[in-house]
Amino acid sequence: MSGGAYRAAGVDIDAQDEALGQVKELVRSTATPGVLSELGSFGGLFQFPEGMRKPVLVASADGVGTKLRVAQLADDYSTVGHDLVNHCVNDILVQGAVPLFFLDYVGAGVLAPEKVVQLVQGVAAGCRENGCALLGGETAEMPGFYKVGDYELAGFIVGVVEADALLGPERVVEGDVLIGLPSSGLHTNGYSLARHVLFEVLGLDISSPLPVASGDSLHRNVGEALLSVHRTYLPAVRSLLESPDLHAMAHITGGGLTDNLPRVLPTGLGASVEKGGWRPLPLFDLIQEAGEVSTEEMFRVFNMGVGMVLVVSSSAAPSILSELGASGHSPWRLGRVRQGSGVDYGA
Amino acid sequence: MSGGAYRAAGVDIDAQDEALGQVKELVRSTATPGVLSELGSFGGLFQFPEGMRKPVLVASADGVGTKLRVAQLADDYSTVGHDLVNHCVNDILVQGAVPLFFLDYVGAGVLAPEKVVQLVQGVAAGCRENGCALLGGETAEMPGFYKVGDYELAGFIVGVVEADALLGPERVVEGDVLIGLPSSGLHTNGYSLARHVLFEVLGLDISSPLPVASGDSLHRNVGEALLSVHRTYLPAVRSLLESPDLHAMAHITGGGLTDNLPRVLPTGLGASVEKGGWRPLPLFDLIQEAGEVSTEEMFRVFNMGVGMVLVVSSSAAPSILSELGASGHSPWRLGRVRQGSGVDYGA
Repeated sequence: MSGGAYRAAGVDIDAQDEALGQVKELVRSTATPGVLSELGSFGGLFQFPEGMRKPVLVASADGVGTKLRVAQLADDYSTVGHDLVNHCVNDILVQGAVPLFFLDYVGAGVLAPEKVVQLVQGVAAGCRENGCALLGGETAEMPGFYKVGDYELAGFIVGVVEADALLGPERVVEGDVLIGLPSSGLHTNGYSLARHVLFEVLGLDISSPLPVASGDSLHRNVGEALLSVHRTYLPAVRSLLESPDLHAMAHITGGGLTDNLPRVLPTGLGASVEKGGWRPLPLFDLIQEAGEVSTEEMFRVFNMGVGMVLVVSSSAAPSILSELGASGHSPWRLGRVRQGSGVDYGA
Repeated sequence: MSGGAYRAAGVDIDAQDEALGQVKELVRSTATPGVLSELGSFGGLFQFPEGMRKPVLVASADGVGTKLRVAQLADDYSTVGHDLVNHCVNDILVQGAVPLFFLDYVGAGVLAPEKVVQLVQGVAAGCRENGCALLGGETAEMPGFYKVGDYELAGFIVGVVEADALLGPERVVEGDVLIGLPSSGLHTNGYSLARHVLFEVLGLDISSPLPVASGDSLHRNVGEALLSVHRTYLPAVRSLLESPDLHAMAHITGGGLTDNLPRVLPTGLGASVEKGGWRPLPLFDLIQEAGEVSTEEMFRVFNMGVGMVLVVSSSAAPSILSELGASGHSPWRLGRVRQGSGVDYGA
């Protein structure tokens, strides 16, 4: 009767084992040369890269937030893991770091193995896209803690950068140019407000056609628009990481351009953003109009189409812009660094 | 009106900022020489230790499970963070690694700043106890996802070990001695069953006196018994980590001795445990009797009083036992490694 009473208390160890088997295959698909361990050992083992001069580890933890609710409504948990990895990769990328490995945490009231596998499928896809090993993770079944069908997903990334290649405010000077890179949508922020406006104010459901100008053929319905995967900017900037002309980067997440740009500017400097320089996705206009949200707030809650901002020397800006453009990353001149503080949005 | 509509959607950015300020002080209290960043930067920065020959990073992710429910019932979230850090420290310790840094993830429907601070107080206490820096973390407010008053807590740890000091099955040989180190209670496993038996079968509540033999003066009531902090074994074994006589360690978590001991034994070898060698805490007897749980299952669900098992060479076992005893870690000879597989429990 082993497991019997435990199962009566709501925990099914077998279900966890079943998911684990399928998960192991996905984990293997992300293996990089540094990986020394198999999933299932107490801790994941990663051979530290040799030949670095003065390595600095860069680590970040994050979740997917209420984008998980959208995944649940769409009955598709296969992409939020990809969002999470890309989000974490971007968070350490802005300090100049490239990822080494990632670990995930999945919590649920009752683990449906196929849902766990979907979640890890997304995580594994993100790890493969970024050359980052999925080194381990935890899958926790917590009866009565989560509503049946709810899944929590958190992740943790570790990357490395040479001390003298760290990016940040100390490199930024007045006149530096801001280069914008496009987001794929909401990425992983602003979902509480977006859901409120789309589902409550507009009364749409997950499979409704997105009521935007026919010109926008990006997304067929609300679910697809809201679930578009958070973009990773590692492929775009990897070749720039050693360049002295790249001074800083800002990952535009919660707080938008308004809160995230100043985080990478030194005291005494602010940013002028030329709002006319790009067109946010129609999804943002839809939310602003239907929700009667002020422009000021839109720029604090959403990325507004700007997923990453590069702060580069004015002299090198033209070549960096053309280089990024030539490699298909659709950059544009977002603005410049000026005296003062905060962010102003010019015409 | 900035924040207005966002607040209407259930997210209060100010509440997060308020908690963040208090959390920063706790984070500073855990700083070690490797820490290069302040909380609030995109990613935490940690200067990799110099002078290592062939360093291997060891990483682990974990949660606190439904021990969180007990913390909620006791209206005390100040210790579960300590449980989490110690659990993670033990998970990498069994491979010979000492911790470098830790990151936490807190999820809630509505963040009560004082609860977040309590959670981080525990995490910080665990980090200080283990000389592990709290390098960062994420605090996520997810309206409607968690019940009001519910808090999820997950953590991620990174440690390091020299490649030639890695512990594991490949070092273990027949005749090796198993040394047990006592747990402080349930640690972080078996809470679903424990809660089921104590609260449903026995009808106790969180503040009921623990109905055990008066000889047990360890705990005054159910809440205190269930919340006793998961012990860290780093202080006990740190001085042994470089010793060739320490072959492997098993952290006794979910699955108990029955599932965790075989994880550190090579194919062809099993373990004989002398059950008479120690007396599990009365709490375990209470749960087994009241829940009519078989002994077999008790040893798969609970640590049964054994928090960590050291697998050491038989020649060095006596000196290691006396060394651990002299330093107050209450070790005992738990059993030995024998031919075969699995774990048998002798008289």
